[in-house]
Amino acid sequence: MRREPSEADARLIIAASEADANQFYATRFLAGDPFVFLWQGAEKILLMSDLEVDRARAQAAVDMVLAIRQYEERAKASGIERPGVVDSLWELLQERQIHSLLVPGSFPVEHADRLRERGVTVRVKPEPFFEERLIKSPNEVEAIASALRRTEAAMDAAIAAIREAEVQDGLLWWQGAILTSEWIKRLIARQLLDDGLIAQNTIVACGEDGCDPHNRGSGPLRPERPIIIDIFPQDLESRYFADITRTVIKGQAPDALRRMYHAVAAGQGCALKLIRGGADGEAIHRGVQATLEAHGFQTGEVDGRMQGFFHGTGHGLGLDIHEPPRVSKVKATLRTGNVITVEPGLYYPGLGGVRLEDVVVVTDTGCHNLTWYRKELEV
Amino acid sequence: MRREPSEADARLIIAASEADANQFYATRFLAGDPFVFLWQGAEKILLMSDLEVDRARAQAAVDMVLAIRQYEERAKASGIERPGVVDSLWELLQERQIHSLLVPGSFPVEHADRLRERGVTVRVKPEPFFEERLIKSPNEVEAIASALRRTEAAMDAAIAAIREAEVQDGLLWWQGAILTSEWIKRLIARQLLDDGLIAQNTIVACGEDGCDPHNRGSGPLRPERPIIIDIFPQDLESRYFADITRTVIKGQAPDALRRMYHAVAAGQGCALKLIRGGADGEAIHRGVQATLEAHGFQTGEVDGRMQGFFHGTGHGLGLDIHEPPRVSKVKATLRTGNVITVEPGLYYPGLGGVRLEDVVVVTDTGCHNLTWYRKELEV
Repeated sequence: MRREPSEADARLIIAASEADANQFYATRFLAGDPFVFLWQGAEKILLMSDLEVDRARAQAAVDMVLAIRQYEERAKASGIERPGVVDSLWELLQERQIHSLLVPGSFPVEHADRLRERGVTVRVKPEPFFEERLIKSPNEVEAIASALRRTEAAMDAAIAAIREAEVQDGLLWWQGAILTSEWIKRLIARQLLDDGLIAQNTIVACGEDGCDPHNRGSGPLRPERPIIIDIFPQDLESRYFADITRTVIKGQAPDALRRMYHAVAAGQGCALKLIRGGADGEAIHRGVQATLEAHGFQTGEVDGRMQGFFHGTGHGLGLDIHEPPRVSKVKATLRTGNVITVEPGLYYPGLGGVRLEDVVVVTDTGCHNLTWYRKELEV
Repeated sequence: MRREPSEADARLIIAASEADANQFYATRFLAGDPFVFLWQGAEKILLMSDLEVDRARAQAAVDMVLAIRQYEERAKASGIERPGVVDSLWELLQERQIHSLLVPGSFPVEHADRLRERGVTVRVKPEPFFEERLIKSPNEVEAIASALRRTEAAMDAAIAAIREAEVQDGLLWWQGAILTSEWIKRLIARQLLDDGLIAQNTIVACGEDGCDPHNRGSGPLRPERPIIIDIFPQDLESRYFADITRTVIKGQAPDALRRMYHAVAAGQGCALKLIRGGADGEAIHRGVQATLEAHGFQTGEVDGRMQGFFHGTGHGLGLDIHEPPRVSKVKATLRTGNVITVEPGLYYPGLGGVRLEDVVVVTDTGCHNLTWYRKELEV
C-alpha cells in the first residue's frame, strides 16, 4: 500500500536557500551553499557546517541548529573515511529514529539514492512541497506589494525617458544620446538596486524583438513600434519578487497595434473578472484566449513560428518568480490568498508584441489588484 | 554488474540554465525555466517549450532544437491526459532508442523516479558532471580575468572611500555621512552593475562582524578594526564569476591584527608556492594550516564557537561561484587549467577577521595569479 505523504516521519530538504525558495521559506536563513533541513513533528532542525553554524543559530527560524561536524565524526567512527552529507545525516536519522522521509521534487537524486541504499524510504512530494507557501500571509502580500511599488517607480523612470525623448530620423534621442534597450535596462537596474531590489533579465523589447516573449531586447528603440517593458526583480531583504509588464509606443500607434493593445487589455480584464477563490485556472486561460480571438487575433504556427497568444495567462508569484498555481492550459484551482500574475500578450512578426501584466491577490469573491501603475499605449 | 558511466546511452539534464551551470555549459543558452538537454553520441538535443523554441534555435550551441509540444502530443495520443516533462521526454527516448541515462547529482529525484518507473536506467555522475568544466579554456580564463578586472575596480572604489574618510568620534565620515557597511556594499554593487556584473551577498564586515566568515556586515565602519571586503560577482554576459577578498584597517593597525595579517599573507604565500598540476589539495590546505600555526594562530572551538582558520583554503571558480576542485580537508588533485581561489583567513572574537583571496590558474609547474589588486592593511 502506498502511504500518504503525511505519514512520513519527517520532511527533508538539502539545498542552498539562496537558490531554493522552499529552503528559505522553511528556515528564513539565507545561505549560498547547500545545507540540511529536517522537520520532524514539531521540530525544525538544521545541520550546519562550522562556517555557518553560528550565523544559523543567530538567524534561522528553526528549533535546533546542530553542527554537522559531530555527525561527521560519528560517521568516521563507524568506518567511513570521508563522510558525505548523507553519511552525516544518516547518523542524525538513526539518533532520531527516522525511517521515512518526504522530499521535494527537486531533491537531488544523488542524495535520494544514497538514503535509499541505506534502507530509508524517500518519497517525493511534487510542488507545492509546502502547500502553505501558495496562500500568502498578510506579511507576504505586503512584501510583494512593497517590491511592486519600487518596481513601478523604475517602470515610471523608464517610460519617462521614452516620453521625454525626441524623435530624429527614426531614432529616440534623450540626454544627448540614442535611447537603446540596453540604456533603459541599465536605468531600471540601477534604480532598483538603489531601492534594494535586484533585477535580472529585464525585458525592453522593441518592434520585432518583442515577437519573442523571452527576447530581452537590444539596440535602438524606435518610434511608432511597440516597446514591451517587463521587470521582475527580487527584493534582496524579503526575497519576494515583483513582476510587471507595460507596453508603450513612442508617438502615434499604428491602428493594428492599437487594436492589439485593446484586445490584450480586454483579455486581461476578462481574467481579472473570472479570478476568485475556487476558480479553475484553465477556464480563465480559455476565457482570455476566447477574448483575444473575439477581437480578431488568432493563435497558431505560421511558417514554422508561433504567433498570437502562446504563453500562459499567469503564474504564482512569491519567493519564486514562477510558482504554482499556473493560470494556463494546465489544470489548477485558484485559492483565496494566492498571489498570481495576469499577463496576456499578443505577438505577430511584422507588428511586434504587446503584453500587459499585473499582480493580484485572489479573494473569496474576486481579486485585489496589487499593481497600481497606469496603462497607456502612446507616450 | 555495475556499468561504468561512460556506457550510458546518453546524458540528460533537466534544469534552468540560469540556475544550473552544467545546463548553461552544455548549451550556452540562458533560460529561467527548466528545459531538457539530451546528449546522445555526437548529438546535443534540446526539447523546448513554444515560448523558447525560436530563441533556442537562434542562440543555443546544440545540434538540434525540438519542440516539446510534438512529443506532448504523442504522449497524449498514447493515453496520458496531461503529460509532464518526463512523459514527453519518454517519447523522445523511445524514438532514439535510449534505454540508459547519465544524470548529474543534482538531477531532480522526481524525474529520476518517473524515468525508472518506465524502465529507463538512470545513473548518477557526481560533480564534476562535465569533467572538462574544471579545465578552463583560454576563453574561460579570459572571461574570469575580465570579471576580476572590473571587480578590482569596485574593490578600489570601496577602499578609496575608506581611505578618504575622516575619523571623528570613532566613526568614519565620508561625503558628509557616516560610512557604513551598507553604503560600501551599495557603492560596489552600483559600480559592478554599470560594468555588467551582478554582485550579491558582498561582504563588508568590520570588527566582530568579521569573526563569522559569512556575516555580510552591517552598520558603521570603525577605525583601527579590520574590515573584510569580499566581492564575488557574476558577469551577466559570460556568466563567469570573479572572487576577491581584501582586508583593510582605517588608521593604525593594532599589533595583534598586524600579526594576523602577516600570518594570513604567509598562509596564502605557502599555498601559492605549493599549487601546481598534480598537487594534492588536502596537502596544500594542511600546509596553510601549519603556516598559520607556526605564526602562533591556533584553530579550534572556544566557548562553543569556532575560531582561527576554519574554512577551506580555496575552491574552483567558473560558471559556479563554488565548484570543484576544493582545496580543503577533502581529497582533491589539482590539474593544470583549474581556476581556483586561494583564501586563507583568521577569525578571533575580540579581534575580528582577516582574509585575503586571490584567483589563480593552475599550471604544470605552479600557478598564474589572475588577481592584480594590491594587498595593504592600513589605508
